[in-house]
Amino acid sequence: LDYQHVQVPFEITLWIMLASLAKIGFHLYNKLPSVVPESCLLIFVGLIMGGIIYGLNDRSPPVMDSDIFFLYLLPPIVLDAGYFMPSRPFFENIGTILLYAVVGTIWNVFGIGFSLYGICQVKAFRLQDVSLLHNLLFGSLIAAVDPVAVLAVFEEIHVNEKLHILVFGESLLNDAVTVVLYKLFRSFCEMPTIKSVDVFAGVGKFFVVGLGGVVVGLSFGFTAAFTTRFTKDIRVIEPLFVFLYSYLSYLTAEMFHLSGIVAIISCAMGMKRYVEANISLKSHTTVKYFMKMWSSVSDTLIFIFLGVSTIGENHEWNWPYICFTVIFCLIWRALGVLVLTFFVNRFHVNTITSKDQFIIAYGGLRGAICFSLVFLLPDFHRKKLFIAATTVVILFTVFVQGMTIRPLVDLLAVKRKRESAPTVGEQIHIRFLDHLLAGIEDISGHWGQYYWKDKLEYFNSKYLQKILLREYDQPKSSIVLLYEKLERKHAIELAQAGQLGHGPAHPSFLSSDRTVITDQKLEDTPSHDVLDNMQEILARNLYRIRRTGPAYNRHTLPGDSEPTERAKEILLLRHKSL
Amino acid sequence: LDYQHVQVPFEITLWIMLASLAKIGFHLYNKLPSVVPESCLLIFVGLIMGGIIYGLNDRSPPVMDSDIFFLYLLPPIVLDAGYFMPSRPFFENIGTILLYAVVGTIWNVFGIGFSLYGICQVKAFRLQDVSLLHNLLFGSLIAAVDPVAVLAVFEEIHVNEKLHILVFGESLLNDAVTVVLYKLFRSFCEMPTIKSVDVFAGVGKFFVVGLGGVVVGLSFGFTAAFTTRFTKDIRVIEPLFVFLYSYLSYLTAEMFHLSGIVAIISCAMGMKRYVEANISLKSHTTVKYFMKMWSSVSDTLIFIFLGVSTIGENHEWNWPYICFTVIFCLIWRALGVLVLTFFVNRFHVNTITSKDQFIIAYGGLRGAICFSLVFLLPDFHRKKLFIAATTVVILFTVFVQGMTIRPLVDLLAVKRKRESAPTVGEQIHIRFLDHLLAGIEDISGHWGQYYWKDKLEYFNSKYLQKILLREYDQPKSSIVLLYEKLERKHAIELAQAGQLGHGPAHPSFLSSDRTVITDQKLEDTPSHDVLDNMQEILARNLYRIRRTGPAYNRHTLPGDSEPTERAKEILLLRHKSL
Repeated sequence: LDYQHVQVPFEITLWIMLASLAKIGFHLYNKLPSVVPESCLLIFVGLIMGGIIYGLNDRSPPVMDSDIFFLYLLPPIVLDAGYFMPSRPFFENIGTILLYAVVGTIWNVFGIGFSLYGICQVKAFRLQDVSLLHNLLFGSLIAAVDPVAVLAVFEEIHVNEKLHILVFGESLLNDAVTVVLYKLFRSFCEMPTIKSVDVFAGVGKFFVVGLGGVVVGLSFGFTAAFTTRFTKDIRVIEPLFVFLYSYLSYLTAEMFHLSGIVAIISCAMGMKRYVEANISLKSHTTVKYFMKMWSSVSDTLIFIFLGVSTIGENHEWNWPYICFTVIFCLIWRALGVLVLTFFVNRFHVNTITSKDQFIIAYGGLRGAICFSLVFLLPDFHRKKLFIAATTVVILFTVFVQGMTIRPLVDLLAVKRKRESAPTVGEQIHIRFLDHLLAGIEDISGHWGQYYWKDKLEYFNSKYLQKILLREYDQPKSSIVLLYEKLERKHAIELAQAGQLGHGPAHPSFLSSDRTVITDQKLEDTPSHDVLDNMQEILARNLYRIRRTGPAYNRHTLPGDSEPTERAKEILLLRHKSL
Repeated sequence: LDYQHVQVPFEITLWIMLASLAKIGFHLYNKLPSVVPESCLLIFVGLIMGGIIYGLNDRSPPVMDSDIFFLYLLPPIVLDAGYFMPSRPFFENIGTILLYAVVGTIWNVFGIGFSLYGICQVKAFRLQDVSLLHNLLFGSLIAAVDPVAVLAVFEEIHVNEKLHILVFGESLLNDAVTVVLYKLFRSFCEMPTIKSVDVFAGVGKFFVVGLGGVVVGLSFGFTAAFTTRFTKDIRVIEPLFVFLYSYLSYLTAEMFHLSGIVAIISCAMGMKRYVEANISLKSHTTVKYFMKMWSSVSDTLIFIFLGVSTIGENHEWNWPYICFTVIFCLIWRALGVLVLTFFVNRFHVNTITSKDQFIIAYGGLRGAICFSLVFLLPDFHRKKLFIAATTVVILFTVFVQGMTIRPLVDLLAVKRKRESAPTVGEQIHIRFLDHLLAGIEDISGHWGQYYWKDKLEYFNSKYLQKILLREYDQPKSSIVLLYEKLERKHAIELAQAGQLGHGPAHPSFLSSDRTVITDQKLEDTPSHDVLDNMQEILARNLYRIRRTGPAYNRHTLPGDSEPTERAKEILLLRHKSL
């Protein structure tokens, strides 16, 4: 037996296997996942495993390594989030998201930091040795909402798109603020004196970290798109480039102390449309499914490790500090959301309702990022107290808030996500309005969001597409693209329905079978009927009858294609009459 | 700048990126890959890179780590090979393959070892300090044909299926022999005296290593199939299990000093049919494409690393030893193939022609496995000589044999792989013959391959399928399965053709368009027409007209489905008349 030799890959594989089997286990009993969020269950599994390890070895189980978390577990989740980010609601609400992410996070950091410092002044609590800087450092790591935790909970409760993107976008973009403040306070802790110039440098650094991340991400994203121009002869490695370039963008950003999360999100959002146009359909399926699979596994591992790392002797328990941390986290978040939303609502027609505000405040879950950051703190005598407080806050938000948010959403009747895809009519309408608003903004001289979007779209089709796309045609009308997509989807659906059905359908009835199949199988989703009607209308109008010459010509023999054309015509008319 | 922090993943990503870009580079110029095999070009890139590193640092570039090779680079390639192994030709020729792999490899090991020992006795060569055991040890690592090198070359020359499986199967299965002999001689080298009992233990060990690998592989494979029974609600992690279980089988086998290659191949072949039936179509696409992608990257990395590792000061040059090694490798392989094929041909009707024998002997390429094994040798004073000889043999076989094998195949007019898939008629015929032969073998009391295949198939459908498959129906007739597959393929083809075509086709003509499309686009592949005809025949015979009751009934209103049924009937007749 030579365990040493295979230990590293063997243990990694076993952990992933455990995570996957845990996931399967939960989904075997349908009741469980509908009551408790998966994240809670996974932490619970982790706690049990940590307990077992602790019991067997009589020493603390291994703590989740911060390096492993930041280098290997976090990137897949953020990549997945960025790649599948609904770009329209994201950019429509980018101002609000940035306000929450930047101002909101700074508000929370200083609010929590100063009020905890106030608590530390109470003699009875025996916390006088925790300095203001240490409290602010602790505030900087505990204030940030965690994208992994938010995603895990919000994916299951299906709130409306705007609410979702506000919480989720904030949790992603606050990384830049967290990185800057955390590193700033950490270096202040080690400096003997702090000059005011350092404070200003910190403010400037925030722009460098955030915008630098965007620049790194976009440049890698466009390079990825450019690379996939040349993979036509070697389809098999196409999916690789999506992963390689986005990971490189993350690592490069981390290397230069920029925000890796912002970089990987910009990279994914920047490359998506070009890469998808360049690579084959099967490569695209592979990219999508593999990304989902990977992020799902990472997510599972993170929550299990969180549970395992909680067990052990890393904690210093101080009731007042820990309780007040939880309370301040809740209070400052709620206050921040209220104040910021007040300003946001003054400038927007489509306001954020008070129900939505409550869910935004309540959805501020903390997770593995805080946990990894607190372990990265330099050693000082109260580190274990901070670890204990962070653990409690995470467990409190994930368990209490995570488990009650779904009933609350039901109770408050928060507007849900619309289940159906937008109809063709709606899409055309939206597109029309976009152009109209861009025109109005241009005329009125107000350079708003529609104006910039229009300019960007122009720049894209004028320059970017020519460089980054392999087959650069004139941009197709989006209605034709939609029709093609519907046709393709329909054909695959048909084939699968035929496969699952009782007997094979006659191929010549693929099309007439369609209505039957959709009526029978997809009755519950109304959007399908609508799509189907639209498809038929489109088909009727987009079908170009190729017979342009006269029906009979003395000088030319009827070509080979003529009879089939005519047969088509006849069948078309008959089909219509049916 | 904090490079230390991200160094490991950053460098790994960069290496993979380099490999992928090199691959794209070759395929940009169509001339290059058609003359030189990709493996040669990659080694060449590696040599250049090694030269650059050597020139810049003035010390030997890093050598490919044997652990990295065996633990991370080899498994994906072998998994891919096992998963896509054409099982019918493999099992039909399993006897011949095993003969080549076991007896042939032993023959080569002892042939090369003893004759090199003879060379060492010549005083003029100054090699008298190389003992017989060391020569045998060297023989054991240099004798084995390398699956990675064989795959890289044979994939491009398209010889007939039997020839391909003979060489490729041998290269995979000889791993068990290599592992045993290499470890045996290595331990003999360190032992003071060798008892005869040790030799017999070595012979027994061979069976343990080979059969143990099969047992480990099959048990993991069946566990994987069993696991995928329960992934219905969580499709996203399905592909993971294929990779996790096969990797675990490899690691477990390595841990117990069994043959990891044999284990992973058994695992992949064992799980394939059950996993494919259990997982969704998209998961299956992901598995297939990701496996291909991964093995392709591993393969590229291996050849580049081979090139890089060649440069440096690890070599001790001794002309006679190195030249005779190359010559003996060629001679003993040729002799072995001749002798073994002579015996094989005596017992088979379908003999191996002398042209095929030449290609089998000539296709015995050496590759990265020898290279890694020679670096794993315990340090002794002539290790650098062995490294030099191994490097030369690998470069000679990959460059000289690899580059000339394609012209030779053309020159000898070796029977090529048939380009078209077997027609339905052929498939039915083959199936019929299988049953017939199984019956004949049963009656005649000769328990041959068909008898066992039949028994295995019975066992499979009686027990295994019930345990391992989620939806266990009565086994469908393979003709119905084929029809379903054709329908599905056809629908996807149609949608893609419609998407690429000039204008969208009317959906009601999906089916009548089909013949037009296939005529226009797929004219060059005759099998498509055949398949198409078959599909039509199948469709006509398998279409079940559901109208079983009388056309008019006083007591029942015509159901909703009736008019569409009748419309179908009418359209069917009209379609036929057209």
